Order: sequence, then C-alpha cells, then structure tokens
Amino acid sequence: VDPQRQRFLLTIAYDGSGFHGWQKQEPPDKPALRTVQGVLEDVLQRLLGQRLSLLGASRTDAGVHALGQRGQFDAVCPIPVERLAEAINSRLPKDVEVRDVTVVHDHFDVINMVRSKQYCYRIHNTTQRPLEKRLFVWHGWIPLDVDRMNNAAHRLVGTHDFGGFAAAGHGRLSTVRSIFNCWVQRDEPGKGNEVHMVVEGDGFLYNMVRIIAGTLVEVGRGHFEPDVIDKIIKAADRAMAGPTLPPEGLWLQWIKY
Amino acid sequence: VDPQRQRFLLTIAYDGSGFHGWQKQEPPDKPALRTVQGVLEDVLQRLLGQRLSLLGASRTDAGVHALGQRGQFDAVCPIPVERLAEAINSRLPKDVEVRDVTVVHDHFDVINMVRSKQYCYRIHNTTQRPLEKRLFVWHGWIPLDVDRMNNAAHRLVGTHDFGGFAAAGHGRLSTVRSIFNCWVQRDEPGKGNEVHMVVEGDGFLYNMVRIIAGTLVEVGRGHFEPDVIDKIIKAADRAMAGPTLPPEGLWLQWIKY
Repeated sequence: VDPQRQRFLLTIAYDGSGFHGWQKQEPPDKPALRTVQGVLEDVLQRLLGQRLSLLGASRTDAGVHALGQRGQFDAVCPIPVERLAEAINSRLPKDVEVRDVTVVHDHFDVINMVRSKQYCYRIHNTTQRPLEKRLFVWHGWIPLDVDRMNNAAHRLVGTHDFGGFAAAGHGRLSTVRSIFNCWVQRDEPGKGNEVHMVVEGDGFLYNMVRIIAGTLVEVGRGHFEPDVIDKIIKAADRAMAGPTLPPEGLWLQWIKY
Repeated sequence: VDPQRQRFLLTIAYDGSGFHGWQKQEPPDKPALRTVQGVLEDVLQRLLGQRLSLLGASRTDAGVHALGQRGQFDAVCPIPVERLAEAINSRLPKDVEVRDVTVVHDHFDVINMVRSKQYCYRIHNTTQRPLEKRLFVWHGWIPLDVDRMNNAAHRLVGTHDFGGFAAAGHGRLSTVRSIFNCWVQRDEPGKGNEVHMVVEGDGFLYNMVRIIAGTLVEVGRGHFEPDVIDKIIKAADRAMAGPTLPPEGLWLQWIKY
C-alpha cells in the first residue's frame, strides 16, 4: 500500500430526479444507468488519474434526494484537501454537488460507524399544484391533522422491531432498529402548505421511511388511529401499515458519525 | 355569433423550463414546438369540442416562469365556470396550471387593458449550488450589495424612455414606459441567499426586465455606480447597460386590469 494513500470522506447533495438511485448499475450488454455513485466515481477517477471505489453510506432509491449523503474513497491525492471539493464540483453535472471533503483515519467506515441519520419526507398539502417543487415533494392534497400525526410519530421513538415497516425482500437478518426522534410539522409554524415528517435513527430498513410516512398520512387524514403504530410494531405485519409513498418527497438530510 | 358565446379570462402558472416560451410555434415542415399557448389551446379545444384561440397577456420567452400569466378565449362552454379550472387542470401536464377562470365582458382585452404587471428576477447569491432551485433562479454567486442596488432601482421609477434597456429588434414604435415600483430585497430580511429584484410597470420592452436585472447586478457588485441608471435613461443607449440575464431567474408574478 502506497504510504501517501489516504481515506477521504465526502458530504454530497443531489437532486435524485435524474438518477437511477445512488448505487452503480451496469447491466451486462446494456449501457450503464445514470447513478450518483457512477457519476461521482467517474469524475474522481478522471480528476485523480487512478482507479478507485466510492462507497456510500445510504443506497438511496431512484428519485430520492440528499442534502447530506456521505461517501468514502481511498486515493493518492495530489490536490490539497481544502481545494478538492471545488475541483470535483467544477467537473460535476448541475444536479449533484460535493459540499465537504475531509481526510479520515484508515479505519473509518462510512457504513458501519454511522451513529444517526435524519430523513425528511415533504408533503405538498394543498390542492394547488407544487409547480416549481413538483420533483421535490409528494403532492398529497387531502388535509392532514398534524397533531394526530405527531401523536403517532412519537410512538415510533425507541428500539423496536420495525419489520412491519419494511418492504418485502429487505434481506436483513434483524429488523430491530432504534428511532431517536420523529416529529411532524408544517413548513411555517401553524400554517404553511408543506407538511414535513422528520425521522432520526441509527438505521432504516428498505422503504422504511416511505412506509412510515404513508402510515402517518393515513393517521393524519383520519383513516387510522394514532395507536395503530403500537399495533404494527407489535404484530410486525407490513399489511397493517399504510402505503409506501413515492420517492420524490424523500430527502436524506444528514448522517452523523 | 352564437349568443351563448362568452369570453373567458384565465390566470395561468407555469414552470417555463420545459416550454419554448408562451407563444405557439409551428414551423413549416417541422413538428410544432412545445409552448404554453399550444398546450393550453390543445386542451381547451378537446375539452370544449370547438376551435378557439387563446390570447396571452405576455409573450414570455423560453425558460421564463409565470405565477400569474393571463389569457383570454371565446367559446360556448357547457361546463359551469366554477368547475372549468379543475376540468382543464385534470387534462394539463404537471408543469402548467390554471389557477383561476372568470367570465369577462365582450370588450375585455387581455393585452390592451393591462394596468400593471409585476416581474421578479431571482438571483441565487451564494457559491453553493441552487440544487433543487436550479431551473428557477439564476446562479449569480458574486456577493451583492442590496442597498446599492436599491439606490439604483428607485431611479427607474417614473415615465421614461427605456430604449437603453431594450434588446435590439424590439419592434415597438415608442420605448416610453412607466415603472411604478422597483426594489431589491433578500428572501429573508437582512440575510437569505436569494436576492429578489422586483419591478412593476404598465408594460415592458423586449428583454427589458432581464437587462434591468443585469444592470442592477453590475451596481450590486460595484462595477457600476447607482447613477448609471439616470445616464442610461438619458442616453437611451443599450451599450451602457449591463448584460441580459438568463431566462431561468425571471418570474411573471401578476397582471392587473
């Protein structure tokens, strides 16, 4: 191993609308799909003149956005670290941006050292169309009762089996996760057309945030009672929860180590 | 003329990114370009089962957005006027929306009866990319002095020859227009990353708002003194003004009759 080789941690923001998700997809005999990992690796390799792998903390789905995705890679880097973000960004398309670069120690692990992540699900809660925001919010126009939703949201906090909030085929041995905070608010206190569902936890199962959001919407429109959360956790039954909301409303806000 | 024929006035919002401007463009021997007028006329004709012409108050350019464009058409309409907006919107693509429909008298004229129009030019004034707003703001990252810009903006108010702020080939006999209000502000008072240049007047020459915005930016970054406005008005010389800023930052806010 080259002694000049270092490990770098990136903070990455993107508009997910134009990407087939984070993870590189190179189907055999077909052109590679446009993914965030693919676009970034390509730019890093050309900039630094070496093969490298960019490992992401969260494999966001197609259409999901990020303000604070994290990625790590190992490389020998001739560019001073404080100028690296600018050098990368000048080569990136306009729908993705590196917001920070730091050097981390050799044992840093962008996936397994995560302490907490925050997601926000944005709902455009009015009949008028979300014209300039339509790729960044879900248009759920049925009036929502935010107090009822908060009653339900608080019941998610704690260490629970969240199997009832996971899409089939999640492929994880354990469905136990910890949610540290969960709340619902309007974008302007007491009014505002946007309803934000915010959730923080140590990790999330496949589609878990979008299923939680779909369940809280059912509570907010009066179809479910807030205590449905306790029942879904107890039964660990996906069929009891609400629908999986579409990807465009979902934002990966930050990841802490 | 059918006695049941009425004149309708629409208030229209659109994201201009996906349109070749407002005005219908049907080049000979080529497919028609996608325009707001074209898309709306097509939906109205299919909905009402008759040929009609939709006349717009402002011929916005490709990439320019609107919250309050106005359009008029004459038709025999079997749908109650209070349900017409919903009927049209259910057939429209997601980047355009009819926000209001009213019946007006037969002598109403959507172009010649305009009393005032408001435009807003939005500048994303920070080095960080305008990720989710990139189609809706201009990314001008050089720090702007809003007080200096306001000093210049106020000098535009009044009835003047604005020939110095019009693109060549504007094709108007008179370049005299009245500006009723013009000011510059940040999206959050005193702070905020977005600088908004707002202008209200009885009419605008071709590219006039984008040239005014480009001139105020030159003032805000210190290249021009605020009194450059007086000099450009006096000389009516386009070469003395700033550049024409790109269309994506421009919003037609409202039109009053």
